[in-house]
Amino acid sequence: MSKSPSNDPTRFSRRIPTDDDRERLICDNCGYVAYENPKIVVGSVATWEDRILLCRRAIPPRVGYWTLPAGYLELGETPVAGALREAWEEARAQLDIDQLLGIYSIPRISQVQLIYRARLQTPDVAPGPESQEVGLFRLDDIPKGEIAFPSVHWALAHFQASRELTAFPPFTNPDDNAPSPDEGL
Amino acid sequence: MSKSPSNDPTRFSRRIPTDDDRERLICDNCGYVAYENPKIVVGSVATWEDRILLCRRAIPPRVGYWTLPAGYLELGETPVAGALREAWEEARAQLDIDQLLGIYSIPRISQVQLIYRARLQTPDVAPGPESQEVGLFRLDDIPKGEIAFPSVHWALAHFQASRELTAFPPFTNPDDNAPSPDEGL
Repeated sequence: MSKSPSNDPTRFSRRIPTDDDRERLICDNCGYVAYENPKIVVGSVATWEDRILLCRRAIPPRVGYWTLPAGYLELGETPVAGALREAWEEARAQLDIDQLLGIYSIPRISQVQLIYRARLQTPDVAPGPESQEVGLFRLDDIPKGEIAFPSVHWALAHFQASRELTAFPPFTNPDDNAPSPDEGL
Repeated sequence: MSKSPSNDPTRFSRRIPTDDDRERLICDNCGYVAYENPKIVVGSVATWEDRILLCRRAIPPRVGYWTLPAGYLELGETPVAGALREAWEEARAQLDIDQLLGIYSIPRISQVQLIYRARLQTPDVAPGPESQEVGLFRLDDIPKGEIAFPSVHWALAHFQASRELTAFPPFTNPDDNAPSPDEGL
């Protein structure tokens, strides 16, 4: 459909629209303002008994590394519905959502992550097209050196910290809280 | 800059890209995929003593109606920084953020709202360019018939419900919780 090697907005330039105070991406031909917004990632720390569901990534970035079932919220979707969809797409897992575990902000890449605490309805999981394999890991058995992203470490540490809690404010980036040594996981 | 009366993506059509499973907005000329993502609104229920900061909207939608200081999260911004920015832009208010009060999802318009509980550093507030006026209201004095959006009602009701709480999970849309009669405010 497109011959361009990347998704480069070739007809757009960055200018400040009238009545605005910051640069936007504007089509040089028609003046269409392509507002860019931070993206919402939704996902879960989902457990079966004392084991946590992880997915080994089959797609960039970080192919071959382990991550939580998570991905971009779609238009028209609630965050909870998005977290359930991602668990199904990536691990063929069916979940019951418990509560919001963490809200992590990665401003460098304009991302806000909403990670839920959840339970698997059954231990039957299988890799979807974006996963090389999926697994259920006890906390001690998680391959800590092969985790895809810092926020996966954060969510796993916060899951551990929340284990005895039934209702709690969502955790945030370790930098926002008083950092503790065990948050590094 | 643009002669078009609206921000209509005239050169784009909706098609399913290769390797995707849903329609995206694709430029008919260059194949650029303009991914559309849900938008994040950040804002606050901010108080000075027992009074709540509200802003009377000077811009569409709902001009003349009262709302919380809130708006779209910008690229490269954390949600907390965005909530502080909006309070300054709309009410010249300086806040200390307490904790996440509510996370509201409006899938019909693909919006996720993160509303914080906050305290004003001083009672000095003044309308910014997007507000006709601003005010500090006791809960009983809020003009309930002139509230701009349902989620403002929700956040005010949840603020009231959270008054004696120092740490709590964020509230969600009333439909997601067990609804209670007083959540209608």
